[in-house]
Amino acid sequence: MAVKKVDACLLSTSVNLLYAAGRVVNGYLYIPAEEDPLLFVRRPAGLAEDDLLYIHKPEEIPGLLRETGLSLPSTLMVEGGEISYADWMRLQACFPKATLYDGTSDLRYVRSVKTDYECDQLRASAEAHARAYKKIPALFRPGMTDIQFSIEIERLMRLEGNKGLFRTFGDMEAFMGSVLTGENAAVPSPYDFALGGAGDPSNPIGANGSVLKEGNSVMIDMCGNFTGYLDDITRTFSIGTLPEKAYKAHQTAIEIQDRIQENLKEGTLCEDIYKLALTIAASNGLADCFMGTLQQAKFVGHGVGLVINEPPVLAKRSKEVLLPNMAIAVEPKFVIDGIGAVGLEDTYLVGKTGGEKITLVEPGIIDLLKGY
Amino acid sequence: MAVKKVDACLLSTSVNLLYAAGRVVNGYLYIPAEEDPLLFVRRPAGLAEDDLLYIHKPEEIPGLLRETGLSLPSTLMVEGGEISYADWMRLQACFPKATLYDGTSDLRYVRSVKTDYECDQLRASAEAHARAYKKIPALFRPGMTDIQFSIEIERLMRLEGNKGLFRTFGDMEAFMGSVLTGENAAVPSPYDFALGGAGDPSNPIGANGSVLKEGNSVMIDMCGNFTGYLDDITRTFSIGTLPEKAYKAHQTAIEIQDRIQENLKEGTLCEDIYKLALTIAASNGLADCFMGTLQQAKFVGHGVGLVINEPPVLAKRSKEVLLPNMAIAVEPKFVIDGIGAVGLEDTYLVGKTGGEKITLVEPGIIDLLKGY
Repeated sequence: MAVKKVDACLLSTSVNLLYAAGRVVNGYLYIPAEEDPLLFVRRPAGLAEDDLLYIHKPEEIPGLLRETGLSLPSTLMVEGGEISYADWMRLQACFPKATLYDGTSDLRYVRSVKTDYECDQLRASAEAHARAYKKIPALFRPGMTDIQFSIEIERLMRLEGNKGLFRTFGDMEAFMGSVLTGENAAVPSPYDFALGGAGDPSNPIGANGSVLKEGNSVMIDMCGNFTGYLDDITRTFSIGTLPEKAYKAHQTAIEIQDRIQENLKEGTLCEDIYKLALTIAASNGLADCFMGTLQQAKFVGHGVGLVINEPPVLAKRSKEVLLPNMAIAVEPKFVIDGIGAVGLEDTYLVGKTGGEKITLVEPGIIDLLKGY
Repeated sequence: MAVKKVDACLLSTSVNLLYAAGRVVNGYLYIPAEEDPLLFVRRPAGLAEDDLLYIHKPEEIPGLLRETGLSLPSTLMVEGGEISYADWMRLQACFPKATLYDGTSDLRYVRSVKTDYECDQLRASAEAHARAYKKIPALFRPGMTDIQFSIEIERLMRLEGNKGLFRTFGDMEAFMGSVLTGENAAVPSPYDFALGGAGDPSNPIGANGSVLKEGNSVMIDMCGNFTGYLDDITRTFSIGTLPEKAYKAHQTAIEIQDRIQENLKEGTLCEDIYKLALTIAASNGLADCFMGTLQQAKFVGHGVGLVINEPPVLAKRSKEVLLPNMAIAVEPKFVIDGIGAVGLEDTYLVGKTGGEKITLVEPGIIDLLKGY
């Protein structure tokens, strides 16, 4: 806050409250630059009252600050990229003399570098998530649709401890993850996920009821919310044998991931990672199906944490620079016409000399007919 | 728009796009007061281009409007209660001469009265949802926790066609629904759902790992997103026999629901419905556990549609008036100390002479030990 020259910060979104107050409440966390934070709670009732103040509405906050002996802020950081315009105007009316400052990008940047506690939460999510992924082949039955397979995987994830909730930043909506097979893997989506899938008119992403056919791939990209912190894993399976191009592309994805891992260290420029990935894809003659065909995502990885899409993004023209303890999902993927998607995704912590892979699952394509 | 004296409306949230354009895109629907709407799409790529215009950013919209022969709006309705402050400011910069008007409440009001098509979508969701609810008892196994039971119910719902996504308005977050048993039913939550439950620190609502114990109730409140339109059903089960007070309270809930159904007709004032419910609860000596104990929700029902919490709300001091084809979930519930919650929830369409119940499931408490 000193850098941004704000006197205080007022948080109200669930993700930032979870981050800064350790709990989700209907209320506000007020963080003065030089004093202890104050938590103002509308609900739930009955919390131990020594570390918080109950309110009915935000209009009470300025008076309570004065009673606590705090002066009102001249400059107040709020979450302008997340709270609604109406909520911003209401807070402005609560603090009529204050200049409100949109701290969304700053807060997301601060959250992008994980504390040791957060790294452990991510490692715990990743470990449980990887354990669940290893059990996926046993769920396959010939003749299943992508949705039916997804349902069994969702149940598996939940039984292994996944909380279900899939938090995103911005306008992206998904259920627990996506299962893509055959031609559906190429279908563009409105959302900024790596790949698409037709999904459903009301939520156009992922599985669309396609039957899992012999000769097709099945890409499984499920969110790993086992601790409130979200890791990300994608693995590719096959129904029998795939065309040679699919295996070659998958092997290229593994190579891209390994090369990126070496570069997940302090100081790396994110656009350079994307360029590296694209160069490897192109040198294997796979540029035209890298990260999609009909619509190509212009990134190969993204930060993860309390939401699935944290900064930084390993994207074309991203000037973000890696810092130790950033958590990054790296997901080189290819769409093979009529067959499905191949490639993989793992989650890493940025280290001094390279990335620490925290999602330990066999990277190769597993033939579901052999497991069955 | 004529009533609100705006020249045009610009929509970008998934729910309003689904409502007004029939599809979710990353883009904007521009609706002039006097002309046909125009859909501006950023993603997905490849949509049939005769009914839409592709853009890279909203700054292109004013120029494209001029090219289409439309004059720029003097007053433009946008979704100020939903889009972020930053997005509002960006749109304001796109239309620097326009006065932006926050149409969130108006749009929600318009959406609250369903078209015949929407009523059919809700009936279809409700029918599938009811069919799934009837299969719940077969999923119970003694010794299960609330989370384990929830997982099997989630899978059942998905297999019966539930899309999974649980859309809300505002800051409410939940996975597919809630399963409440024993003492957890009384735990207050930050969210504005009828009841609470401790849930998890990262999502404090619903099941918390409590074992389903003999003598406790199990209240199951799962969202019914089978068509993109969400109906709502809650049913109460028991593990063996409950104390007499629980059955009495449940019977009172049924009575409240039946009395409310008679009043779900054009012209009824919503606060009167809440008063009616509270009066019946009080006359049965149950006011202190109506809609919670430690924290009591001050409503007994709410609109449903593309989100689970549409207007109107059957709440204390709600001056909203019922109109034909509003879709309302009515959920009288009681918390019985140490036992759990009882009561039920059904979805109705407001009619000329009373509500049409569209969720047809046996209302009584079902003993899971007998079904097992």
